[in-house]
Amino acid sequence: MVSKKPENIPALVCQPIGFIRSGKHLKHAARHQPDEAAEERNHIELLPVPGYQEALHDLVGFDRVWLVWWFHLNTRWRSKILPPFGPGKRLGLFSTRSPHRPNPIGITPVRLYGVKKFTLEIGPCDLVDGTPILDIKPYLPSYDSFPESATGWWGDYAKEEAERGPCAVKIAPLATEQLAWLEDKWKVEFKGRMVEILTRDPRPHRTRRIRNRRGGGFDIACGAWRAVFDCVDSVVTVTAVEPAFPPVFLRDTQRTRVPDREAQIAFLLKWPKA
Amino acid sequence: MVSKKPENIPALVCQPIGFIRSGKHLKHAARHQPDEAAEERNHIELLPVPGYQEALHDLVGFDRVWLVWWFHLNTRWRSKILPPFGPGKRLGLFSTRSPHRPNPIGITPVRLYGVKKFTLEIGPCDLVDGTPILDIKPYLPSYDSFPESATGWWGDYAKEEAERGPCAVKIAPLATEQLAWLEDKWKVEFKGRMVEILTRDPRPHRTRRIRNRRGGGFDIACGAWRAVFDCVDSVVTVTAVEPAFPPVFLRDTQRTRVPDREAQIAFLLKWPKA
Repeated sequence: MVSKKPENIPALVCQPIGFIRSGKHLKHAARHQPDEAAEERNHIELLPVPGYQEALHDLVGFDRVWLVWWFHLNTRWRSKILPPFGPGKRLGLFSTRSPHRPNPIGITPVRLYGVKKFTLEIGPCDLVDGTPILDIKPYLPSYDSFPESATGWWGDYAKEEAERGPCAVKIAPLATEQLAWLEDKWKVEFKGRMVEILTRDPRPHRTRRIRNRRGGGFDIACGAWRAVFDCVDSVVTVTAVEPAFPPVFLRDTQRTRVPDREAQIAFLLKWPKA
Repeated sequence: MVSKKPENIPALVCQPIGFIRSGKHLKHAARHQPDEAAEERNHIELLPVPGYQEALHDLVGFDRVWLVWWFHLNTRWRSKILPPFGPGKRLGLFSTRSPHRPNPIGITPVRLYGVKKFTLEIGPCDLVDGTPILDIKPYLPSYDSFPESATGWWGDYAKEEAERGPCAVKIAPLATEQLAWLEDKWKVEFKGRMVEILTRDPRPHRTRRIRNRRGGGFDIACGAWRAVFDCVDSVVTVTAVEPAFPPVFLRDTQRTRVPDREAQIAFLLKWPKA
């Protein structure tokens, strides 16, 4: 046991050096880890602090940088968590990359496309828009890259998943119409991420936000929306979409922080719930 | 430019979750990055905080974990720094892994050998004894490992170094005797790290702490000690060792924080300076 007592240890204070601009405003839209295959571009805007511009010099030629950042949407830590995929049971926090950490610090190696004054152009990342950035470090394969490293429960699950294979995901006509309407009229897009989750594993799971539905079938929550689906022999069929907030919430003007409120109300007028 | 003003941004507060026990008490003894070839064992002792023991569950089977830690021996940041190796000029901080960062946070992927209650047994690391640990995360090659990532100035220097080849380092009889005496009598050991630095690049350099010596030759500072050497055609010869602190310091009882004080005084009695 260490001799230092927790109560005698001084706090360490961080200051954001900047913020991410990723266009992903909800946790749902951000990935659990970067999708390296995507052609995505994101930006880090550093604060106009004297010296930061000079500190960015000499990054040319590095393919990748580490972002060290603050999980600003999390407020408390938990010793055990249920990962978004995995064996479906609660695991020790330090064996996961969950945000619910004693010090909510994330690390992500991202592709670096360029630096212009206080702005870095980067590739795919898993950060919600506005996440505070604490540090930028060069990615050095000789210190950071261990391709053969074994990964305990994570590796076991990846193997099981590979054996199980992906599900086919079909979108029925009504759901197709609803998703297109949301995208065209309201710029609401969650189909890609939803299909990806369902392809991987459509089983009910709290963190994937998939539930058994009263009366049969399942639904998956996607930000302010829900999709209803059934699953037969590894074929998932998304039958319909619906607002995730109840009408009574949507009409309560005291509640000011309802995402996609206008779109949800319009949706209910067009497709009234039974 | 971001709309948020630095002065309006709230500070983020970290608390150490534990401390490293690495047996390396001086910055000199800790490496710039872990020496993966070493058979070294180190320990992390977590604080006895409720929940930490459960949070360590399920780490079995992971070869490696990330340590996220606080560079507690650094007090200020610098926008440009001179790396311990490299082109010998000052480089933008964010293109380096220097400790002099706005948020002095380090990340190191270390081998995990085991977990016992609040203690983790780990492999080689670059952390000075007593460094505060902020987080432990599993190393996941599919998110963390990019062996082919290009590394700008670092890669250029590595190539140049490979072309230049290592120096042969010889220890002359007097230096051999002095190093053995320090190790036997005083448990002071810096030969390994010193030889490693000189093998790699014995040219004068502030961060490597190699200087031209008045009257010819060079010296390298190693914690509380200095080694004198010359270099001819890629052959380095270490001729002698000497205390780094002047006698007047060593005898000044007001100065309480002189490392290896007793050993330095004894050394000067045995090998008085000319």
